[in-house]
Amino acid sequence: MAKHVPHVYLSGPWDKSQLSLEDPQFRHLSGVLRRVDGSALTYTDGLGTIGTGTLHGRAIERGAEQVLDAPRPLAIAVAPPKSIDRARWIVEKLQEFEVDALIWLRTENGQARPPKPDKSVKWAISALEQSRGGYLMRIEQVGGFDSLLRPLVVADQAGVSAVTAIKQDGAICIAIGPEGGWAPGEIPNDAPVMSLADTVLRIETAAIAAAVLVRTISRSDGSD
Amino acid sequence: MAKHVPHVYLSGPWDKSQLSLEDPQFRHLSGVLRRVDGSALTYTDGLGTIGTGTLHGRAIERGAEQVLDAPRPLAIAVAPPKSIDRARWIVEKLQEFEVDALIWLRTENGQARPPKPDKSVKWAISALEQSRGGYLMRIEQVGGFDSLLRPLVVADQAGVSAVTAIKQDGAICIAIGPEGGWAPGEIPNDAPVMSLADTVLRIETAAIAAAVLVRTISRSDGSD
Repeated sequence: MAKHVPHVYLSGPWDKSQLSLEDPQFRHLSGVLRRVDGSALTYTDGLGTIGTGTLHGRAIERGAEQVLDAPRPLAIAVAPPKSIDRARWIVEKLQEFEVDALIWLRTENGQARPPKPDKSVKWAISALEQSRGGYLMRIEQVGGFDSLLRPLVVADQAGVSAVTAIKQDGAICIAIGPEGGWAPGEIPNDAPVMSLADTVLRIETAAIAAAVLVRTISRSDGSD
Repeated sequence: MAKHVPHVYLSGPWDKSQLSLEDPQFRHLSGVLRRVDGSALTYTDGLGTIGTGTLHGRAIERGAEQVLDAPRPLAIAVAPPKSIDRARWIVEKLQEFEVDALIWLRTENGQARPPKPDKSVKWAISALEQSRGGYLMRIEQVGGFDSLLRPLVVADQAGVSAVTAIKQDGAICIAIGPEGGWAPGEIPNDAPVMSLADTVLRIETAAIAAAVLVRTISRSDGSD
């Protein structure tokens, strides 16, 4: 196997030819991955720029950089699951599919609190680095339906096929409900409802299924 | 919220009007879920039959039963990930999407062992019950490419869009490679290659993405 090239997130703006690494990043690169001066790495600001550089002391010497096309806008609003592991899965997997924004959704039957913001961001950065992406997902702590972007599609077993709903409505926001389901009258009138499977999906499964569908359907259409 | 109706897996064949519960199942129903004689429950043999019955002592009194349409045949062959948590996630999520068979795939760069069969089956049963499904996934311990059903599609970043590949080739088996990627020459000549995302997906993310795509695309086509 070719030696793996580490991919590092460094928040911008970058105004120097060398970008300082934070202590944990440097310790990981030198201590765990055994990289030395001159080792190749890639880096991103999480806003679409990816560069190829080298390790230089406790910094990255910048090299060629490019700005990636932005993925199609997509926010996923999710009622937080009770288990922190499942919340972490949601953050990681939505980041892997380059979802723009994860919004922890306040719902009538949802009883769990969202994970703390610093934790969520750490999980997202780690998934960004691991998946070699260029866009870091935003995480909004708690929103209700009013705060969500439109067109909005709501996941529910009673709805039409997900592919149909996503193609027709060009959803830019998808809402996933809590373990107890939506309360009567809770789903906004302007939001069509889509079904993701014949079975009952867990929150994290529905969230990732929605991300997979929007991302892959938009790629096959050749749209951005 | 309406009281949740437990869904219980009981392997067939069922030849009596009452089906005996195993001790852990009974303890869960009576001790954890506090169900009593006469409580409603649903049950399945994992082969497509689902019934509505009631708790009766340490058994289920059978009621109306129906046989669900079988989902479109779909096997997913996956190089086992190193982490047992990630392996468990694969089993659970593929079961939620009613994949027929999970095959732990032997690959040149894959170094991890598959989880023990009894563990995998337990995870699958629990996901079957939780998702209220009627078809229990088969889990095959270790196979190479020769043992996989055709048409076979292999996931790899170099391939065409997943939606295109799945529609064209009507895949009934999808292979997901190990963390180190496929070795040169490892992908069989008769298998087209598809890409699931622009980013680098983890094994478990690719496996669930493949299941989501095949299941939802076949639903929207109106095919079974």
